[in-house]
Amino acid sequence: MKGLNDYIAQNRDRFLEELFELLKIPSVSADSRHKDDMLSAADYVKDKLLKAGADSAEVISTEGHPIVYGEKIVDKKLPTVLVYGHYDVQPPDPLELWESEPFEPVVKKTVNHPEGAIFARGSSDDKGQMYLHIKAFEAMNELGDIPCNIKFMIEGEEEVGSAHLGDFCRKFIEKLDCDVILISDTAMISMDTPSITTGLRGLSYVEVEVTGPNRDLHSGIYGGAVDNPVNVLCDMIASLKDENNKITVEGFYDKVEKVADEERELMGKAPFDLEAYKKDLNLEDVNGEKGYTSLERTSIRPSLDVNGIWGGYTGEGAKTVLPSKAYAKISMRLVPHQSSEEITDLFTRHFKKIAPNTVDVKVTPHHGGEPVVVGTDSDEYRAAHLAVVDAFGKPPIPLRSGGSIPIVALFEEVLGAKSILLGFGLDSDALHSPNEHFGLVNYFKGIETVPGFYKHYSELKKQQK
Amino acid sequence: MKGLNDYIAQNRDRFLEELFELLKIPSVSADSRHKDDMLSAADYVKDKLLKAGADSAEVISTEGHPIVYGEKIVDKKLPTVLVYGHYDVQPPDPLELWESEPFEPVVKKTVNHPEGAIFARGSSDDKGQMYLHIKAFEAMNELGDIPCNIKFMIEGEEEVGSAHLGDFCRKFIEKLDCDVILISDTAMISMDTPSITTGLRGLSYVEVEVTGPNRDLHSGIYGGAVDNPVNVLCDMIASLKDENNKITVEGFYDKVEKVADEERELMGKAPFDLEAYKKDLNLEDVNGEKGYTSLERTSIRPSLDVNGIWGGYTGEGAKTVLPSKAYAKISMRLVPHQSSEEITDLFTRHFKKIAPNTVDVKVTPHHGGEPVVVGTDSDEYRAAHLAVVDAFGKPPIPLRSGGSIPIVALFEEVLGAKSILLGFGLDSDALHSPNEHFGLVNYFKGIETVPGFYKHYSELKKQQK
Repeated sequence: MKGLNDYIAQNRDRFLEELFELLKIPSVSADSRHKDDMLSAADYVKDKLLKAGADSAEVISTEGHPIVYGEKIVDKKLPTVLVYGHYDVQPPDPLELWESEPFEPVVKKTVNHPEGAIFARGSSDDKGQMYLHIKAFEAMNELGDIPCNIKFMIEGEEEVGSAHLGDFCRKFIEKLDCDVILISDTAMISMDTPSITTGLRGLSYVEVEVTGPNRDLHSGIYGGAVDNPVNVLCDMIASLKDENNKITVEGFYDKVEKVADEERELMGKAPFDLEAYKKDLNLEDVNGEKGYTSLERTSIRPSLDVNGIWGGYTGEGAKTVLPSKAYAKISMRLVPHQSSEEITDLFTRHFKKIAPNTVDVKVTPHHGGEPVVVGTDSDEYRAAHLAVVDAFGKPPIPLRSGGSIPIVALFEEVLGAKSILLGFGLDSDALHSPNEHFGLVNYFKGIETVPGFYKHYSELKKQQK
Repeated sequence: MKGLNDYIAQNRDRFLEELFELLKIPSVSADSRHKDDMLSAADYVKDKLLKAGADSAEVISTEGHPIVYGEKIVDKKLPTVLVYGHYDVQPPDPLELWESEPFEPVVKKTVNHPEGAIFARGSSDDKGQMYLHIKAFEAMNELGDIPCNIKFMIEGEEEVGSAHLGDFCRKFIEKLDCDVILISDTAMISMDTPSITTGLRGLSYVEVEVTGPNRDLHSGIYGGAVDNPVNVLCDMIASLKDENNKITVEGFYDKVEKVADEERELMGKAPFDLEAYKKDLNLEDVNGEKGYTSLERTSIRPSLDVNGIWGGYTGEGAKTVLPSKAYAKISMRLVPHQSSEEITDLFTRHFKKIAPNTVDVKVTPHHGGEPVVVGTDSDEYRAAHLAVVDAFGKPPIPLRSGGSIPIVALFEEVLGAKSILLGFGLDSDALHSPNEHFGLVNYFKGIETVPGFYKHYSELKKQQK
């Protein structure tokens, strides 16, 4: 480890500068105006893979944004690790809430990051976490110690549902052949309490449109006599949860995994400070499904959130309009063994059923993803565990996360390989929010941890034979 | 009347062209980018008043948009009529729903207007209805038959709450001295069934802001554990009406006038075709307060509508955000003897009271206005009645309207004069909506009717003496 740490120390400034260059490219996959930026970011990743020591690297077109693929085959007899990450980022809106420019990275100190954090869109999700793998690879290559074959698959559509990744995996199934997939796109509890993600929630995401009268009406002349689609939409959304915050969509909980009491008890031992949580969010109180803790509500229980709502006059001042239409984006996080497609169907049927006959309702599904559970009784999990012990000096806690990485289920199905979710971010990194950031310590600790994974995984596999 | 009708027929094209010029000026009072257009529209009205024969006309500054004042004093012994109207218009949004440009007037035929209607923002509300008074005045002046002193007060802030009109009236109380105020800013039932508006609803208009967490959050990591302000706002809005569509704001109905059964029975005789109403709006069904007819729901009963709602991600595609804030514009139409200020207070108190402790709520009042009832037993009402009989060949029906003209109550209080609401629009004119229009017949019938009002009013006043 001495050589590795020296190498990281000697190249620290360059490692940071290179990440900054990547963060400056506004690769927003959801926004078609950024098409060229997507290509620039993909090229940048490809170039850096080659410079780090890949045998080959290429930008491969898809029907959407391209995927970067690179590899270093050391010895066909060694186990093969496929690193997955993404170079696309969430839209930076709302822009006015950023304290610095989203695509002009700066380092600032925070309560959670006393040694400084990089503020930029994508710093944690996922450019910083993806790029640390390329730098770990570079270090291993320079030090002449690569105990596994390594493949990189870095996509550009994770934030918009990875629509073309499935076809890509099926098309290049031999090229992508591997023993395990390694992903850093999740968080740890803290740098003092390292953790490994052992579960992810699935996702069902729909857009709804409620149409009342065929045109916007004067709210004085018609108000009271005609159902207002915004009021109706509010009624319908309000009815989606009952007084215990249970989701009322018919059949919604039918397939939800019942987690054993012992497992819930174990989970309850993970450090979680509710007061600090509330303080961080400036909340007087939290709220959620009755009978579950905050940690359980975001891990073993499904949820439903309105991600956006709009309708009527939203400009300056007052307009007395009774609008013709109202819209909302609504998403549900799913847990094992709910199916994204099935839940989308149940929601659609339910939402149309509860609509009064004074409006028309249209439900359009966006991307979805399946929930995932990662077993802890495997060589790959043990390798990740040991790598964290080496770098952090203490054992990581296995922890389910509330987020979704829809492609994990896909990888298992198409590539037949399990994924390890070895994330180095923090939940407080403001992912998908203004002022997203990624700790300097997290970045460099990541570079230090990853080579340990390859070492332990290779050794565990050797013992097995 | 022969001379009048000849004059209108001879000048028909010019009367239309002049109105078109006015409609081309985008005098949107709510939007500060249109400040210069407001001045252009005011100047245009002033010039046309002078050309029509006013002794004097001026554009008078206020702290908001200016007010145009003009007068023709024939004889101090004659009664004085103050014509009120407004040159400002509603914002044209949503622009994409206009079939022609909002500020490029065109004449098209419709089911309600087989002889053609002028399509433009402000055509009916209120430029068309205001300008017909200037043309009626011109005709009377040219024909040498002006039986009253006439004053014009044309403001530019009606659509944003007439914030500076009260001060203006108080400041120029002597200049504005009059016996009656004549306003054309309402609708008739139809050209076949003329009506005069005998009541207007008041208005309370608020904007609400609901704040949850101090930043936008990742809906996966936090969803289920933290109250989502959009969901909370929907819950709160849904709770504002009960299952019978009664408004639940505490004390809301305390002062609502109880209309006598006989009066309700009389009202029920006004022609109203529910099937045609639904068909016009493309609605399978209507909905409103239990126990009242559609006409009652928009005249003698108060209402509550969301005029706009927004929060979270409203762009293209999907963003998995749990937003920090959600907003809505909510207005209530009031009936005698509700007070706008009191209802705004009751709403504010109620809305804060029903907010859970997981969010902060801010309520900001916009403009309001008091409800109005116009008595039918007066010289001014009788004059309007007789003018309609002359021009339409049948007696008008007295009818309460659901809209609001907040300044009517103010005029009575400050100027001590009653208002006559002699409107020539139709409810189907798409006021405040895309494709607003005003029938050609309505415009010219208005020019024909107004001189009759002056004639009958002057005669009735003379008889009284």
